[in-house]
Amino acid sequence: MKEGMQHTQVEPGRRYDVFHTDCPARDMVDHVTSRWGIWVLISLRGGDLRFYELRESIQGVSEKMLSQTLRTLVRDGLVRREVEPTTPPQVTYGLTEFGRDVAEPLTDLFDRITRWLPPRTAAATG
Amino acid sequence: MKEGMQHTQVEPGRRYDVFHTDCPARDMVDHVTSRWGIWVLISLRGGDLRFYELRESIQGVSEKMLSQTLRTLVRDGLVRREVEPTTPPQVTYGLTEFGRDVAEPLTDLFDRITRWLPPRTAAATG
Repeated sequence: MKEGMQHTQVEPGRRYDVFHTDCPARDMVDHVTSRWGIWVLISLRGGDLRFYELRESIQGVSEKMLSQTLRTLVRDGLVRREVEPTTPPQVTYGLTEFGRDVAEPLTDLFDRITRWLPPRTAAATG
Repeated sequence: MKEGMQHTQVEPGRRYDVFHTDCPARDMVDHVTSRWGIWVLISLRGGDLRFYELRESIQGVSEKMLSQTLRTLVRDGLVRREVEPTTPPQVTYGLTEFGRDVAEPLTDLFDRITRWLPPRTAAATG
């Protein structure tokens, strides 16, 4: 999915001094590949989810860490947070165009890694 | 680059319970996308590097963190460590086939993110 490209105002990544600590791309990559960010982005590829659905799908994440991760991803413009004014309010999270664009290589990365894992580890699958 | 596929014995990632803490794929993804692992893998795509070259190219990484990251990536089979028996011994690091295969989506991820960054951040480029 390439809808990101039409927004592009800068040259491809090579132009950035990625290894420089104050590189804006590096901060964003760190958020996207954070301990929990990667799983939030991959799981939201399947569709919008409520907070409790995300928490149940990502085993081992605490409410605090999931909230923190979602706040960062929303601030970065990767995830959108929608609140329905019901009683109680229903909050759902979904990927923005930007989020869908970057979630794609994350899934590709995950699929490649699983293909390389030795067969014995397949026993760990559901 | 798809040479990984011919080694595959398992189905694509979906088969794995990725969100389970004891999923072997999740551990590997965590290593690959660790604070420094991602930059080591991306920088080694350009060719083999010595330890000091890696350290100089990845701004902000300490010797201890770089050593730790390289040890993990070598143990995972993503990076190979070659020691020339010279005096002093020359140690170089490079990507294995597995490492090159997973470094590809990492570069794709980085390139997509930089394309989405607002123009103003281009000022931070070299």
